[in-house]
Amino acid sequence: MAHIKLPEDQPGIRGAMAFRPETAKPLNELVEILLHGPNSLSQGERELIATYVSAENDCYYCQTIHGAIAAASLNGDEALVKKVKLDFQHADISDKLKALLVIAGQVQKGGKNVTAADVAHARSFGATDLEIHDTVLIAAAFCMFNRYVDGLDTTQPRDEAMYRERGKRVARDGYVAISKEYLPAEVAR
Amino acid sequence: MAHIKLPEDQPGIRGAMAFRPETAKPLNELVEILLHGPNSLSQGERELIATYVSAENDCYYCQTIHGAIAAASLNGDEALVKKVKLDFQHADISDKLKALLVIAGQVQKGGKNVTAADVAHARSFGATDLEIHDTVLIAAAFCMFNRYVDGLDTTQPRDEAMYRERGKRVARDGYVAISKEYLPAEVAR
Repeated sequence: MAHIKLPEDQPGIRGAMAFRPETAKPLNELVEILLHGPNSLSQGERELIATYVSAENDCYYCQTIHGAIAAASLNGDEALVKKVKLDFQHADISDKLKALLVIAGQVQKGGKNVTAADVAHARSFGATDLEIHDTVLIAAAFCMFNRYVDGLDTTQPRDEAMYRERGKRVARDGYVAISKEYLPAEVAR
Repeated sequence: MAHIKLPEDQPGIRGAMAFRPETAKPLNELVEILLHGPNSLSQGERELIATYVSAENDCYYCQTIHGAIAAASLNGDEALVKKVKLDFQHADISDKLKALLVIAGQVQKGGKNVTAADVAHARSFGATDLEIHDTVLIAAAFCMFNRYVDGLDTTQPRDEAMYRERGKRVARDGYVAISKEYLPAEVAR
């Protein structure tokens, strides 16, 4: 039972979004731009950042669904997603992404933890200002989403097949398109 | 100097938003609905929640501008804003708002900290499901905004008069309207 009465057929953030579609609209638009829109960081890289921050915040729903979206964006490589969550410094990812994950991890602890050295390190591997900006905002946004999902004590089914299946669809269609399945038609335009 | 090159004439989140207007648009729409739109919680109550969370996250820019917006919404009562930040249990606010601030403080630490007892306590003072939802989402959103502002090391002038003046205008006109001053015209529609 969630802390407030949410639609019972929608797990995780979907239940909260169906309860309050007015705020769901900008939330979906934000994550669409950050994770699914055109970007010099690949969709898989951005979903790995979201997954890592959600794991650091210990949010089961978010780390599992975004882990599934990341895997779907990375040729189904679930082992890589798991490695990034547990020990990204030794994962088979670029040095640039490792440096961005360091920044994301600092943001997760609190914005002031990001140092000029962290940023210079990312830049030394070719990270642009826009990539650094988006890394900070993705990490910050997942500190919101994780708290939203857990702060309302939403239903978070332990059903890996459900997350895997949905992850493939979100990776393909994006957040705004898929939100139309659970938001009222007049909001989800 | 911020961690990335931001427009120098815009302090705090405004510099970050001017740098990335695509994400600024849903961010402003979110905060417009949560803090300025129609609600059974007053504008002042909601701004106090945002200010309190920003103070707990030690974000100077956010706690000062939202404190100013809160004061402007509360007949200029800056002493009340200060009291809420430091010791809200003894501030001259309703028992319902105190109970919602407890929930907001738990969300700030992490979503799982919100207990059924915290929610029942708020409900015993008349808090509705929507008010509890919005409190959780306001607190979660400011865990994002605070990290965004501090994670990029944005310019945060120590100029109380600037915040006070702008606070009055945001309290009156709202976030989306005022964002047109610093976002490109094609985004700020």
